[in-house]
Amino acid sequence: MIVDQKINEFLMDLSSSSPAPGGGAASALVASIAASLTAMVANLTIGKKKYLAVEPEMKKIVAEATSLRDFLTQLMDRDVEEFNMIMAAYKLPKETAEEKELRDKKIEEASIRASNVPLETARACIKIMDLALKVIKSGNVNAVSDGICSFQFANSAMKGALANVKINLNNISNPEILQQFNTEIDNMEKESINIYEKNKELLEKVK
Amino acid sequence: MIVDQKINEFLMDLSSSSPAPGGGAASALVASIAASLTAMVANLTIGKKKYLAVEPEMKKIVAEATSLRDFLTQLMDRDVEEFNMIMAAYKLPKETAEEKELRDKKIEEASIRASNVPLETARACIKIMDLALKVIKSGNVNAVSDGICSFQFANSAMKGALANVKINLNNISNPEILQQFNTEIDNMEKESINIYEKNKELLEKVK
Repeated sequence: MIVDQKINEFLMDLSSSSPAPGGGAASALVASIAASLTAMVANLTIGKKKYLAVEPEMKKIVAEATSLRDFLTQLMDRDVEEFNMIMAAYKLPKETAEEKELRDKKIEEASIRASNVPLETARACIKIMDLALKVIKSGNVNAVSDGICSFQFANSAMKGALANVKINLNNISNPEILQQFNTEIDNMEKESINIYEKNKELLEKVK
Repeated sequence: MIVDQKINEFLMDLSSSSPAPGGGAASALVASIAASLTAMVANLTIGKKKYLAVEPEMKKIVAEATSLRDFLTQLMDRDVEEFNMIMAAYKLPKETAEEKELRDKKIEEASIRASNVPLETARACIKIMDLALKVIKSGNVNAVSDGICSFQFANSAMKGALANVKINLNNISNPEILQQFNTEIDNMEKESINIYEKNKELLEKVK
């Protein structure tokens, strides 16, 4: 698994002229960093007298955030695998009309499957943004900057993941499937803007 | 060095109730992921006939982005070290008035030094945002989503890093030093908003 790599090795792979791992896997990693930071703030809140009232909530947040973190690290590998499937489809023969048709079909199928990976990353990011806001609001005040980092990273990972969904949609012609994807993308973009605007002051001021 | 750790080990450390590594080191990591992705897009542009005209520019971008990536991975360690220095200052004795005064002085000194690390991360992020825009505009069009990821990650790493500067400023009473920090923070926040607004369409639409 990619998470068994050293950080530096991953960064070298990412920088190289090999297109995978790319933005999709990187979005999942940034999201998992965000989830880790929310877990940290909740962990720094648990066991402190001052925060006894929110301890049950914080324990739940640790469980949810670490589970999202682990799910996201798996998505890193899935992203690379699905990308390679698209590349394999592109390499199919395209001499005859029949071959061309089959190749187009395979590219479209692989692109639909591949689009689902960053879409799952984006969905996880919305959840992390929500958890991050909770730790910013009621978690250990000394770690509020870590909560803000978590929110910002999750927000950018969502945007990055959705850019990866959108680029894959170029290979999809099925109008119903395209509409499904586009509707969910629109909804998530609107939701994330709403969450940001509603909590702007909380996110931009560090007390 | 932190970058010699496996990704998963780092994520476990980050999630734990130990406050370091925290948002500062994570901001430097997210920024170095951003730098890596811009390097990747430039690398995917070099050596292609279609992009011959921009090849010299892309080679420069690879050099700058990889140098920023490596600088940022060093900042991860510096962030943890400086944080530990603040913690050490907090542990100084505070029985007598003299001891209290010395402790306050040491906390303030350590906080000034520690604030400089995320400030350097934020400065690097502005540079990465600029490089990312260049690869989005004139780099390999198949990797435009990777360029967008790079920009978004750098933007969020800047915000996260500045939240870490701000929280350290709570320990600083010297008005001149506070003003210096606040002026630079304001300038960077304004600059990043300007860059975003100017390139909004480029960043939100994936062709």
